[in-house]
Amino acid sequence: MTYQAPLKEIRFVLNSVVGLDKVAAYPAFEAATPDLVDAVLEEGAKLADNVLAPLNVAGDRQGAKLTDTGVRTPDGFKDAYRQFVEGGWNSVPFDPDHGGQGLPWTLFIALLETWTSANMSFALGPLLTQGAVELLTAHGSDEQKTRYLEKLISGEWAGTMNLTEPQAGSDVGAVRTRAVRQDDGTYRISGQKIFITYGDHDWTDNIVHLVLARTPDAPAGTKGISLFIVPKFLLNADGTPGERNDAYCVGLEHKLGIHASPTAVMSYGDKGACVGYLVGEENRGIEYMFTMMNNARLGVGLQGVSIGDRAYQQALAYAKTRVQSRDVAGGPQPVTIIHHPDVRRMLLTMRSKVEAARAIVYFTAASLDGRHHHPDAEAAKQAGLLNDLMTPVAKAWSTDIGVEVASLGVQVHGGMGFIEETGAAQYYRDARIAPIYEGTNGIQANDLVFRKLGRDGGATARALFALMAETADAAAAQPGDDLAVIAQGLKRGIAALEDATSFLVDHVKADARAAAAGAVPYLTLFGNVAGAFLLARGAIAANQALAQGQDAAFHEGKLITARFFVEQVVGPSLGLAELIRTGHRTLMALSEEQF
Amino acid sequence: MTYQAPLKEIRFVLNSVVGLDKVAAYPAFEAATPDLVDAVLEEGAKLADNVLAPLNVAGDRQGAKLTDTGVRTPDGFKDAYRQFVEGGWNSVPFDPDHGGQGLPWTLFIALLETWTSANMSFALGPLLTQGAVELLTAHGSDEQKTRYLEKLISGEWAGTMNLTEPQAGSDVGAVRTRAVRQDDGTYRISGQKIFITYGDHDWTDNIVHLVLARTPDAPAGTKGISLFIVPKFLLNADGTPGERNDAYCVGLEHKLGIHASPTAVMSYGDKGACVGYLVGEENRGIEYMFTMMNNARLGVGLQGVSIGDRAYQQALAYAKTRVQSRDVAGGPQPVTIIHHPDVRRMLLTMRSKVEAARAIVYFTAASLDGRHHHPDAEAAKQAGLLNDLMTPVAKAWSTDIGVEVASLGVQVHGGMGFIEETGAAQYYRDARIAPIYEGTNGIQANDLVFRKLGRDGGATARALFALMAETADAAAAQPGDDLAVIAQGLKRGIAALEDATSFLVDHVKADARAAAAGAVPYLTLFGNVAGAFLLARGAIAANQALAQGQDAAFHEGKLITARFFVEQVVGPSLGLAELIRTGHRTLMALSEEQF
Repeated sequence: MTYQAPLKEIRFVLNSVVGLDKVAAYPAFEAATPDLVDAVLEEGAKLADNVLAPLNVAGDRQGAKLTDTGVRTPDGFKDAYRQFVEGGWNSVPFDPDHGGQGLPWTLFIALLETWTSANMSFALGPLLTQGAVELLTAHGSDEQKTRYLEKLISGEWAGTMNLTEPQAGSDVGAVRTRAVRQDDGTYRISGQKIFITYGDHDWTDNIVHLVLARTPDAPAGTKGISLFIVPKFLLNADGTPGERNDAYCVGLEHKLGIHASPTAVMSYGDKGACVGYLVGEENRGIEYMFTMMNNARLGVGLQGVSIGDRAYQQALAYAKTRVQSRDVAGGPQPVTIIHHPDVRRMLLTMRSKVEAARAIVYFTAASLDGRHHHPDAEAAKQAGLLNDLMTPVAKAWSTDIGVEVASLGVQVHGGMGFIEETGAAQYYRDARIAPIYEGTNGIQANDLVFRKLGRDGGATARALFALMAETADAAAAQPGDDLAVIAQGLKRGIAALEDATSFLVDHVKADARAAAAGAVPYLTLFGNVAGAFLLARGAIAANQALAQGQDAAFHEGKLITARFFVEQVVGPSLGLAELIRTGHRTLMALSEEQF
Repeated sequence: MTYQAPLKEIRFVLNSVVGLDKVAAYPAFEAATPDLVDAVLEEGAKLADNVLAPLNVAGDRQGAKLTDTGVRTPDGFKDAYRQFVEGGWNSVPFDPDHGGQGLPWTLFIALLETWTSANMSFALGPLLTQGAVELLTAHGSDEQKTRYLEKLISGEWAGTMNLTEPQAGSDVGAVRTRAVRQDDGTYRISGQKIFITYGDHDWTDNIVHLVLARTPDAPAGTKGISLFIVPKFLLNADGTPGERNDAYCVGLEHKLGIHASPTAVMSYGDKGACVGYLVGEENRGIEYMFTMMNNARLGVGLQGVSIGDRAYQQALAYAKTRVQSRDVAGGPQPVTIIHHPDVRRMLLTMRSKVEAARAIVYFTAASLDGRHHHPDAEAAKQAGLLNDLMTPVAKAWSTDIGVEVASLGVQVHGGMGFIEETGAAQYYRDARIAPIYEGTNGIQANDLVFRKLGRDGGATARALFALMAETADAAAAQPGDDLAVIAQGLKRGIAALEDATSFLVDHVKADARAAAAGAVPYLTLFGNVAGAFLLARGAIAANQALAQGQDAAFHEGKLITARFFVEQVVGPSLGLAELIRTGHRTLMALSEEQF
């Protein structure tokens, strides 16, 4: 099954839902003319369709391997990365002062969607480099920027993020890797890190590891962690890679999915001296990490969209060709299974959730652009608050639906879905990591409730709800039955979400366990209603286009998909508000021994 | 991670929820004394814990292999099967006239739960033999019974079910395999079958394939299909296996899960002459298949319970030992993750859904025993109707929650869940087949709505709802807050289910597409409310036990789990009734081209 980047869908969301034109109008993005945006999308899609997608299945079967000379990615991956770098794709959203193209995240996320759909294992690699770029752009010294940043932006070198240790997963403050300052100002790093994505590979002639470690007299917990640059090869005076640093991949994990993406156990300073360079000041490593957290989480949220869309495309193609059983309300001849109502229900569930998740992720990306580049300071501040609020929703909701959609994709295929050669099973396996890494979805939900609602008593959330209500009113003012249903459903959703928000804001401090108990159901409800809000925006635009006689087949699809989402996803979830108010009472009632 | 059969849970359901004592009181089951039941459960659990469970992980890694001399199951499986047969476990629920032990299905299903939890791939094998036993018991000639049935009941030989062909999956009527009658009364079989579970293996010295095929002049569709016995080895005059029949496994599927269970492509009559023996009369093969359908579907539904319980046991053990992050309402020290409310929520979701599914499957098994053995003819008839109604719910609801629970099990483990060595990922992979085979869950939902509601206008369903209402009243009459909440939640659930039932009964004929559109959501709601009903029964028993001072820790657990299920599972699902009434409108609105 081949992948085709859904450019029409993507353009619709960019133009009619999140307003790329408004983002592109920021002075920083003067390069992002409509013509350029179009060309970039077209070319990026070709990379996805023609270079990355064909490697996806073979990469899964072959997997990344640890050899005597380091990690070897599957056949074709190294060459695909070369094409990726040569096309300038690694530098799209970065600072032109260091060789980036300075294009909006809102556009970049659309590209990244197609690459990730095409080959999630491949697209993970650049995602890590991107994190390193963000960190060094914000916190690196001028010398560090000169020596590392431009190579990372071009993609000539790759970056990694080294946070996790066996006892320090969600709790990054528990890091034990040591960093001891030397007389020359460098540090000696020693310790082991696990789950290091692309911790080693054969793509680049250097890898820049960003490593969290603890200096000997650092305070306990998160306030005692520092951030270090640990290059795989130390740099010569002229900036070229020289002596091998003592930073080695000593093992690869045997994983459920994303087999082509090496997940490394990294050992630092085990063979001799591992040299690290402090980023910024000691003990501020966690604070620096937060710089790239929103982007990284958005990138993972996008994986839910991408794998979901890939699974949908494949299930749809199967449903249109597989002939089985007669139409429940038709003649005696067997029909393609897309004629069966329950197959339709599964396909529309997949489609509407992917569209909602895409809209949520792109909307969040637009707030990221606003935060950094809106010319009005107050507007930029508001965009930043919105970005903070939406990021955990974009990450967790989208990756939850990614798993669900991939599972439905298997189901649409029937028995063939369970056979690996079909391909649907790979999405089901690959999708499963996204709710876990970059902060589990439980962590995201706690972030949403305790940090994001907690810090302003829900003010940012309520401002968003007011925006949603405006859209509901605008939808209600449109002609047609579909928009009326969508408006009504969205209003009910907002009411439920406001109700749940009030309860949680009241309990964040007063009864933290009750707030934590409701966090995941709240995030689900939040995502459902935010999805309905953005699909309603699209439905309004579609209705207007229909009134003007534009592309009826496509725009009717938008109306029906939005209505389906409101009726079949949002409606049945309104009871979550009551669950949040009452469900916490039993949660901690049993002692540990009673389990 | 080792498995431990949850005998205390199983006994509670058998005794306090489904009433094994009433079943054991049928004259046919006079052997099933309480002492014998206890001994059988203990010994069966030992087989699960000590023989089958230790082979589960290695079996997954090694997988079944096709060799020049046939299929080889993973190391240890053949010997485990030998122990299984020597212990008499294959014959538990079968007719004593042919060597069976004549014990209730209600008891056998409890044993099968533990074997399937221990090793789903292994336990599938006997499930297929069991289907063959059912078929031949009901429809075999006396000679066929003499020659095949006793060997199948003892487990000396194994059975297989050959329905599926590439174009005939859910639509069994599309079978093309041919059967041509010979002068000696035998048939020559020719054709290929796919997805044949345990189509070949190294466990037994003969395999009895039951094959659906079409005679040359048979009518089209399901009314032209006949059933044949096709032994791997033809029998000598003395009944021992003789000449090799032309029935070969020509390929094994490369599957997402249940790797140790061979899924064969079977070829009949390709090398020479494949001899088959007609079962019963020509053209009645589908009708005969229905004989074993309820049992087989129940066995697959049980797989959801089993894999769910295994996933729960492992996630719970991890949650009790994994230390990570501080208590949200506690001190600064990190705690085991079972102290985190969202981990509790996941564990209680897993636990309550597994308990509900177990109760549903066992309750359905009890109706199967009633159908065949209740001494009162009218009561037996009612049990049969209830069994027909509940079977699709038991199959589909339990396997849906099996996938969900296995996925939650991965999530509880965080990053470790994605690593194959942990084991949680295997359950996620293995669980995924159960919603597909033995009739996809979409087929089950259509069966529930069109056949089971349709045939009596919902009368059997309403009789069950009345029974549920009695339990709700009994719960409301109990002292205590938990029972009050459970009673209230169950009543709301029954009301929603009655509402949805009325809509569907009205539309089965009048608007089949609308009925089909709501079928899966209806089955979900049905399972949720049926689960609440049976957990409420258990909660009443637990409340009474608590009042008598019996085992407070255990019985409080029952109350809290039932309450959690009502609050967090049933409550938020009540909106499905509205979805069923309204959601169908958009389902077929788009043309095929608009997808």
